[in-house]
Amino acid sequence: MTRSPLPDDLLLNARDDVAVRQNLLLVALGRRPADRILRVGRLFEAGTGSWMEDAEIVIAGRRIAFVGPRGSYPGTAAEIVERPNLSAVPGFGEVHKHIESSHVTPEYEAALVIPRGCTWACEASHEYSNVNGPRNLEFWLTARAAGSPMKIFPLPGSAVPPTAYEGGGGYFGHDEQATFMANAMVAGLDEVMDWPAVCNADNPSHDRLWGMIEATIAARGVVEGHAAGIRDLPNINAFAAAGLASDHESWTAEEAWDKIRHGLFLEIRVHSMPDIVKGLLERGLTDWSQVAFATDDRTASDTLKLGGTDHNVRTAIAAGLSPEKAIQCVTINPARHMRLTPHVGLIAPGRFADIVLMDDVAKISIVEVWADGQPAAKSGRYVGALPEITWPDWARQSVNIPRTITAADFAILHDGPVAKAALLRPFHWAPDFITTELPVENGAVQRDTDRNITKFAIIDRHTGAARVAKMFWLGCGPKTPDTAVGCTVAHDQHNLWIVGSSDAAMALVANRMRETQGGWVLASGGTVKAEVRYEIGGLMTHRSAEALDAEMEAFYAEANAIEWLYEPTFSPRWWPGFPERLQFATLTCAPWAWALVAPSDAIPQGFVNVQTGATHPVVW
Amino acid sequence: MTRSPLPDDLLLNARDDVAVRQNLLLVALGRRPADRILRVGRLFEAGTGSWMEDAEIVIAGRRIAFVGPRGSYPGTAAEIVERPNLSAVPGFGEVHKHIESSHVTPEYEAALVIPRGCTWACEASHEYSNVNGPRNLEFWLTARAAGSPMKIFPLPGSAVPPTAYEGGGGYFGHDEQATFMANAMVAGLDEVMDWPAVCNADNPSHDRLWGMIEATIAARGVVEGHAAGIRDLPNINAFAAAGLASDHESWTAEEAWDKIRHGLFLEIRVHSMPDIVKGLLERGLTDWSQVAFATDDRTASDTLKLGGTDHNVRTAIAAGLSPEKAIQCVTINPARHMRLTPHVGLIAPGRFADIVLMDDVAKISIVEVWADGQPAAKSGRYVGALPEITWPDWARQSVNIPRTITAADFAILHDGPVAKAALLRPFHWAPDFITTELPVENGAVQRDTDRNITKFAIIDRHTGAARVAKMFWLGCGPKTPDTAVGCTVAHDQHNLWIVGSSDAAMALVANRMRETQGGWVLASGGTVKAEVRYEIGGLMTHRSAEALDAEMEAFYAEANAIEWLYEPTFSPRWWPGFPERLQFATLTCAPWAWALVAPSDAIPQGFVNVQTGATHPVVW
Repeated sequence: MTRSPLPDDLLLNARDDVAVRQNLLLVALGRRPADRILRVGRLFEAGTGSWMEDAEIVIAGRRIAFVGPRGSYPGTAAEIVERPNLSAVPGFGEVHKHIESSHVTPEYEAALVIPRGCTWACEASHEYSNVNGPRNLEFWLTARAAGSPMKIFPLPGSAVPPTAYEGGGGYFGHDEQATFMANAMVAGLDEVMDWPAVCNADNPSHDRLWGMIEATIAARGVVEGHAAGIRDLPNINAFAAAGLASDHESWTAEEAWDKIRHGLFLEIRVHSMPDIVKGLLERGLTDWSQVAFATDDRTASDTLKLGGTDHNVRTAIAAGLSPEKAIQCVTINPARHMRLTPHVGLIAPGRFADIVLMDDVAKISIVEVWADGQPAAKSGRYVGALPEITWPDWARQSVNIPRTITAADFAILHDGPVAKAALLRPFHWAPDFITTELPVENGAVQRDTDRNITKFAIIDRHTGAARVAKMFWLGCGPKTPDTAVGCTVAHDQHNLWIVGSSDAAMALVANRMRETQGGWVLASGGTVKAEVRYEIGGLMTHRSAEALDAEMEAFYAEANAIEWLYEPTFSPRWWPGFPERLQFATLTCAPWAWALVAPSDAIPQGFVNVQTGATHPVVW
Repeated sequence: MTRSPLPDDLLLNARDDVAVRQNLLLVALGRRPADRILRVGRLFEAGTGSWMEDAEIVIAGRRIAFVGPRGSYPGTAAEIVERPNLSAVPGFGEVHKHIESSHVTPEYEAALVIPRGCTWACEASHEYSNVNGPRNLEFWLTARAAGSPMKIFPLPGSAVPPTAYEGGGGYFGHDEQATFMANAMVAGLDEVMDWPAVCNADNPSHDRLWGMIEATIAARGVVEGHAAGIRDLPNINAFAAAGLASDHESWTAEEAWDKIRHGLFLEIRVHSMPDIVKGLLERGLTDWSQVAFATDDRTASDTLKLGGTDHNVRTAIAAGLSPEKAIQCVTINPARHMRLTPHVGLIAPGRFADIVLMDDVAKISIVEVWADGQPAAKSGRYVGALPEITWPDWARQSVNIPRTITAADFAILHDGPVAKAALLRPFHWAPDFITTELPVENGAVQRDTDRNITKFAIIDRHTGAARVAKMFWLGCGPKTPDTAVGCTVAHDQHNLWIVGSSDAAMALVANRMRETQGGWVLASGGTVKAEVRYEIGGLMTHRSAEALDAEMEAFYAEANAIEWLYEPTFSPRWWPGFPERLQFATLTCAPWAWALVAPSDAIPQGFVNVQTGATHPVVW
C-alpha cells in the first residue's frame, strides 16, 4: 500500500492532525520506524506532577510517539540520543504574551525565547491587529508556516479597536471572530479589557465586544479576561459572571486570591509574582491547577537580561513554590486552560516533542531545548530553524502619513493672553482631567517647563488622514529645549505619539518616522540623535534580539544625555529618566478615563473620556 | 429602556448565554435584583480546593451571580435562605455515563440522581443512538427543554454502529458529528472503543471513526477514549498518540498509573476504585487534577441501593482520598476536562446554581440539593421539576419486528447425525471461538444442557427485516426446560437477544416483546412468567426508578425460580444465577473477537470476528 505523504504538521488543522496521529500510533506500536529516541535521566510528567526515572522519548516527525522506561520501545529509530544526566520537562508555554512587546518578529522571537525554555505562546494579538487587522492571522502564522519551531497560538484581540473612540488599523466583531475561530491555531478571544463596554449596554463598543464573545463561545474557544483595577467583590463577581475566564492583572495576593476563588483562572505576571505566590502559599493554596504564569509585555532587551518564561518560573520558585508546581504553571496548567492539551503542555504521546533539558531543576538551569523533535537550543544558543522571511509591504509599510508634518501641526491655538488647559499625567487614572492655566503667545498656548508641563501629540498613522491630536501633559517628556521623542508603539491603537519641548522638534520626529516606518526617534537641536527601527508594523523589527538590543542601548545612551521631566503617578512602573513607558501611557482600557486618541470626525481634538464618551476641548 | 425577556437558559447556546451573562453581571453589581440568596456555613471552592466560611451565594434565574462572605452582596434579593449548619459543594457531575443503563428516561434520571448530588452528566449516548441515531440529540435534550434541572451534555457515540459488521438504528460519521458539534450542549465524541478500527487502516470502520474524530477536533470538542484491555505500554502510547483523551476502563492501579502518566485523563469507575485510589495514593499521587469518577453503567436499582455519584465519592474517601480531592473528581476536574467550566463544576459566578448541601462532608451526607438555583432535593427526596413528557412514537415504538416469530426461526439445521458447532461463552475474549460436537435430531442441531450448552439468538429489531442470528453458547441461559429469557438491551447495537432451553420458549419471548416494545421477558412452560418494560427505545422506561425497581424485583423473584447454567469466564463481573449481564455479553468492542450480531447480507449467520471481519458458519 502506498502512503500519501504526511502533512508537515506545522500549522494545526483537524484533517492533518488526523493523518499525523494515524501515523504516530503506528510508530508507538513499533509498526513504523521512529525518527529519534531521546533518553533522559528523568522525565517530568506534568499531568500528575511526578517524575519518571531513566526514561526514553520516542519521536516521529515533530511529535512524541512513545514514552517509557529506557529500552521499552518495541520499534526501531534512526537515531538514539543519550542525555542520562539531564531532567526533561515539557516545553514552557506563555498563557498570555504580546510578542509585539519583544519588538522582534515571530521567527526571531523563537530564537530569543526557545533557549529560555519557551516553545509555545498564546499570542495576545491586539497590538498588531490594531495596525493591520485583516492580516493579523496571516502575520502570526507566517513564521511557523515557514518552519519556525515556536508554536504561536494567536488569540484575536477583543480591543480592536481598543475603544469605540479609536480605530483605523482593524475592526474585529462577531463575524471576524467567527472566521478566526475556524482556524485551529486560534485558541479563543484575547483579554477582554474594556470592562465599561462589557457591563454597560449603552457603551458603543458593547455590542461589538459581546459579538466577539458570542462567536468565541459558539466555537468552544476560551474568552480571556483582563481585570485591571477590578478588586472589589461586586466587580470581581460580575467579571466572572460575564464569562471572562481569566485575569492577569492582579497586583496583590489578596486580589489574586479573591479572583481565583471566584472561578477566574489566575495568570500571574513576574512583577507581582513574589507577593502573589508568597501570599497564596500563606493562604494555604496547595492546588495550583488554576494558575499559570504570564509574560504579557517584555522587551527583547529585558528577556536577554532577565530571561523569558524561565525567569517567571525561577521567580516563583524563589517565592517559595515547588519547582514541580512552578513548572506545571507554564506547561499543563496553561495548556489545559487554553484547551491545547492534545498538542502542548505534556511530554506524552501525541504532543509536540518540545522538551526542556535541565541539569538542575530547582534552578531551572537549562542545558538544551528541543522543539518539534529536534534540538533547538544548546547552552543558551539557538540552533533551531530560523526561516528567511521576506516580510511583504503590508507588514513593512505601516506608517501611513502621506504628507509632511510641520511645526504648525502641533500648535494649540487660543484667543486671549491666557488659556485654561486640560492636563493629563501618564497613567492618570483619576475620573477627571487636571485643569491649569497656560500662557498664550502669538495666538498659541505655550508649554510651562518649570511646572513640568509639556506637549504630547498623537498622529493618526493608519487611515491616511494624518490628523494630529495634541494637548498638554504633565511630568513627562524632554526638559532639554528643542527636543522631542516619539514612537509608533502606542498601546493599544499604536498611532504615533510624540512628546517634545518644541513643535519643530516634534515635526522632525514625525517626518523621520515617515522614512523609517516605525520605531523610536529622538531629535534634539534640529537633528535626529538616535533611532530604533520597528519596521514591521511599526511594532517589531526583522532582526535578532541581540541586534535590536544593541540599537536600543545606543538609543538609551543618547536619551541619557537629555534632561527629562518627571513626576510620580499612579503606575508603580513609572520611573524618572527616559520615559520609555509612554508606550503604555496611551492605553484606553480600564482604569483609564480621560485619554488622548487620534482625531476623528466625532472627536476632532482626540480628547475623550473612554469610559463615558464625553469629550472636552484641550484648551478653552 | 425596555428589556427583551431573558432566555429560559435551559439548553445552552452562545447567543442565549450572552444574554444570560449580560443580565447576571448586572445582578452581581447590584444593579438588578437577585432572585435568591443562599447563605451557608461554608462553601467549597473547587478551583483551589479551599473552603470559604460563612458565605452567601446570590442567584439570578438558574445561575450564580455573586459569591461572597455573608452580607457582602450589594444588591437586593427577593428571598434569603439560611443554611448556617450546612456545607455547600458544587453539584456533582458524571464524566462518563450511560443514562440508558439506569433504564429510566432523563426526567426520571434527574429525580433519581439529583437527591444523590448529581446535577449534570456527560451522556455517553451510543446506546440510544444505535436504536435511533437520527433522533439522538432530540431525545437527550427533551427533558431539559421541558424544564428538568438535570444538565445532560450528550456526547454522540463513536460506536454507531459499534463495528462495521452491525447496523440498523443509526449511522454516525464525519458529517453527522460535524452537525452535532454545532450544538453547544454537545461536549465531544464519546468513548472511541473500536481500537482495532482506529489503528488499522484496512478495518472497514477506520474512516468512519477517524471522520468523527476529525469533526470533533475541528469543533474543539473532547475525544473520549475507552481503552479496555489496553495495558501494555505500546498500546497505551498508541492510544494516547491517537488523540483519544481519556480512559475509564482501568482495573488496576498499575494500569491506571501507566495511563494517567501517558497523558490520558483518568476516569475511575466504582468497582475498581478502591484498588486504583489506594494504589495511586501509594504511588505518591498528590495532584488529582487529571482524575474524575465515572459511573458508566449503573441500573436504577443499584443507584437506589448503593447511591449514584455520591457512592463513587464515598468509595474514594473510604479508599483514602481526602473528601476535598474526591469532590474535585466529580466537579472541577470533569468540568475542566470536558471544557464545561463556564457552566458547571464550581460554585462561582456565571455557573449554574447547582449546589449540594451536606451536614457531614467526610461522609457525603447530603441534606439538600439545589439545581438551577432552587431546591431540587430534600433529605433524599426529589422536589425538583419533573416535567410531564409525552414521549412520541419514535421513542416508544422501537421493536421493529413486523412478523410473528416462530420456533422454526431458531432452528439450526444440519445434514447428518452430528454437527460441529462454534461455541461462545459470555465475555469470551479469546482470539478463537470454541469448537464442539452436538447431536442432530430431525435435521436440527440440538442443545446439550449437560455440557452447559444452550442456544442464543439475536433478532434484528431495527431494520424491519427481523432476521434471526442463532448459535450455541456455553455457560449461560436457563437449564430449566422450555424456558427462555430475552432483552432489548444488547450492548451496543441493542437488538433483541434471547437465550432459551427451547425454541418455542424463545419464540414466545420474541412475540411478547413485539407487544411490550422492549425490556425483559421471561417465559417458561408456555407462558410469560415475568417482564420488565423498557418501552422507550427498548432501553428505558418512562417511570420512576422506584416503580422500575419494584418491577425488576418481581422479575428477579420469578427468575430465581429458574435454574440457570453457569461457568466462569473472563469477566470479573459474571456471576451464577439469573444472567442479567448478558446485556453486556453482546458487546463487540475491544477485547471482543468472535461475536454474534444480527444477520445481514454480508454476514447472513451473524457470526463474525469483529477484529478481523472473518466469518464462519455456526455449525458445519
